[in-house]
Amino acid sequence: MTQAVRHDAMRARNLALVLGEVSARGSLTRAALAEITGLTKTTVSKLVGDLIEAGLVVETGAVRDGERGRPGVEVRVSGDHVAAVGLEINVRYLAVRVVDLTRSVRLRRTQAVDNRAARPEDVIARLGDLATAAVDEAVEKGLRVVGSVLAIPGPVNGSTGTVQNAPNLGWRHVPLSSLLRLPVPVRIENEANLAALGELWFGSGLPDFLHVSGEIGIGAGLVVNGRLFRGAHGYAGELGHVVVAPDGPPCRCGGRGCLEQYAGQETLVTAGADGDAGADGDTRDAGDTRDAGDTGDAGDRAEITGNDTDDQGVARLVSRLRAGDPAALAACERAGWALGVALSSAINLMDPDAIVLGGIYAPLFPWLGDVVASTLAARLGQMRSTVPPVLVSRLGAEAAALGAAGQVIEQIIANPAALLQS
Amino acid sequence: MTQAVRHDAMRARNLALVLGEVSARGSLTRAALAEITGLTKTTVSKLVGDLIEAGLVVETGAVRDGERGRPGVEVRVSGDHVAAVGLEINVRYLAVRVVDLTRSVRLRRTQAVDNRAARPEDVIARLGDLATAAVDEAVEKGLRVVGSVLAIPGPVNGSTGTVQNAPNLGWRHVPLSSLLRLPVPVRIENEANLAALGELWFGSGLPDFLHVSGEIGIGAGLVVNGRLFRGAHGYAGELGHVVVAPDGPPCRCGGRGCLEQYAGQETLVTAGADGDAGADGDTRDAGDTRDAGDTGDAGDRAEITGNDTDDQGVARLVSRLRAGDPAALAACERAGWALGVALSSAINLMDPDAIVLGGIYAPLFPWLGDVVASTLAARLGQMRSTVPPVLVSRLGAEAAALGAAGQVIEQIIANPAALLQS
Repeated sequence: MTQAVRHDAMRARNLALVLGEVSARGSLTRAALAEITGLTKTTVSKLVGDLIEAGLVVETGAVRDGERGRPGVEVRVSGDHVAAVGLEINVRYLAVRVVDLTRSVRLRRTQAVDNRAARPEDVIARLGDLATAAVDEAVEKGLRVVGSVLAIPGPVNGSTGTVQNAPNLGWRHVPLSSLLRLPVPVRIENEANLAALGELWFGSGLPDFLHVSGEIGIGAGLVVNGRLFRGAHGYAGELGHVVVAPDGPPCRCGGRGCLEQYAGQETLVTAGADGDAGADGDTRDAGDTRDAGDTGDAGDRAEITGNDTDDQGVARLVSRLRAGDPAALAACERAGWALGVALSSAINLMDPDAIVLGGIYAPLFPWLGDVVASTLAARLGQMRSTVPPVLVSRLGAEAAALGAAGQVIEQIIANPAALLQS
Repeated sequence: MTQAVRHDAMRARNLALVLGEVSARGSLTRAALAEITGLTKTTVSKLVGDLIEAGLVVETGAVRDGERGRPGVEVRVSGDHVAAVGLEINVRYLAVRVVDLTRSVRLRRTQAVDNRAARPEDVIARLGDLATAAVDEAVEKGLRVVGSVLAIPGPVNGSTGTVQNAPNLGWRHVPLSSLLRLPVPVRIENEANLAALGELWFGSGLPDFLHVSGEIGIGAGLVVNGRLFRGAHGYAGELGHVVVAPDGPPCRCGGRGCLEQYAGQETLVTAGADGDAGADGDTRDAGDTRDAGDTGDAGDRAEITGNDTDDQGVARLVSRLRAGDPAALAACERAGWALGVALSSAINLMDPDAIVLGGIYAPLFPWLGDVVASTLAARLGQMRSTVPPVLVSRLGAEAAALGAAGQVIEQIIANPAALLQS
């Protein structure tokens, strides 16, 4: 290792150290940074100068340095310059979120669309358009968008940028990275993993939990001590194919009685509509903020800017549940029981501190949450002094796209030198 | 932080760095150590001197330093001075292993005994006697025994030294650390976690696997990239209570249809003996190295020194399987199927690279392995390009006690300064 390489490596490490402390603790004086990092004040001042120049941190007004009695200026992470894009291809919608370095959401774009009915190339082109427009708009706001991550409902090989198999989209071996035209670099990642990270960075703030991402498929992401657990190949958290009943209904995975057959979106929506398929309009609650009217028709390209990405099916199910429809209530009861059975296996294996129900389980939580909790209590209560609480995600369907943007932010904070050099 | 404290912390870090490299790479010259660690040769020489003095490393004969052409002396980890004790309280036996710093097993003591029939105090006193005798013997061999870890079949609160609940022993809130009289410090830890670590350090050498510890209870330990996964509270890996069939036979945990009801030692042994309870002697295979005769009668204090800690029940089951007993074969078939169902949930959730069957599943592997593998293939093969292979542990019932000793060795290598100061 040459002297120059050593110096660059040390500078990169120290830049990350300083930015990491500022990001974690809020705002800090240079003197406090020197104390915390063990670096000299001269070194800290030089590093802070570089981070300010790159637009990553900003100085705040002069404050009193309590300890020494000298005036000090604090630095904090800047939300005005660098930003990241989070993208999601869901079965029923496309989503784009632009997030700045302070983790404030600066732009939300969601397009309700039936991605199963379209060719992968067309879906990817549509996402490219939506994302490019959002990046353009962010640039107009003065933001420099430095990277993006794309959430996909299926196992992903990040290194090749290829979607191996997203059965709910009907995609196999789609070379996503090479098809997607974007003005910023993109990495792809599994939706359930990103939704868990979204919950970590934008949701409850709990450091240890299992986030359940209820969609057409059911994925989960385990966060332990603030870090995502990925397993040996990055495929951990396939909760949807945990066995509820070994001889249950056949699953598209080749198994039988998987959780998805009891609690997946399609089973819930179909079962809930038993004998009531034509009566949707009558039972819809006009005051429902998650009403399908807000999200546009499935297959339509209506742009929605809110957090409400549930498709008509789930919105109708919620309306029906509110109206006390027995078939809908029974479907939720059964789904909640199955979730409780599968989650009791997951808790025995993975030992999370809490369960956070997200995706479609967020709007369905009033009809699911208690059944899940009581099933867990019955199966786990005798062995464990405490059974993990069952919580609802505040982010719902937005979690994955936020987690995707958040992952870019994390990378910047972990290695700001890469940005300074570019 | 004072100058002296800083210096001590840096020295401790550098001692760990040097010993870690020597332990990981075999033997190294001081020059090579300086190159690898980035420390100066003077610093390395001083650190190596301290490690030699503490008996942690030793010099080997002079060798040619290829790069520089100067003669160099290599240092390697010493097996002659420092040692660790691994202990296990199993339902059916007590085990002690003494392991030196090179991870060679120096002493094996196993006592077949029915620990469920005895009071916790008596079991603990008996283990204390067995371990103290082993430590005395190790000291006679010139070894300095610096610590021990004790494997317990149940969740353990390591910080208080109390066994919260070991249902298979019938123990609740047993203040183990304060009852156990040992000439060395002891920490307690869950048996399944330690068995997985035993497999990592003394077994196949794979870096990513789920080790299944088949005993009266069924535990599992997940190793990811050479590290044990513990979950939020250290209770991860409770494979025995993963749901096989939600309405199956009631389990002592309060649930129903848990894996333990299909594949636990008692179910296997009992089901295998159906209608054949009196015929054990007739079907026993005299050539069986795992024959019960080697381990002494259960409840007896016969001391055995080998690796053979299976109790009579499993040995009889193996004999019966060899004789082609239909009830025994059916019990193994059913257990293998149930293991496959539960493991398919575990693979979906935890994504291990391989499954290693240990404990009683090691001797039963010829009758279980194929059923487990075919059940996994049927449930996972369609979704995954590769299904994790199902392997047999070479360590069997010895894994936990070895993992316990190995954990002490790891701690010494991670922080040799603690030993130098004492």
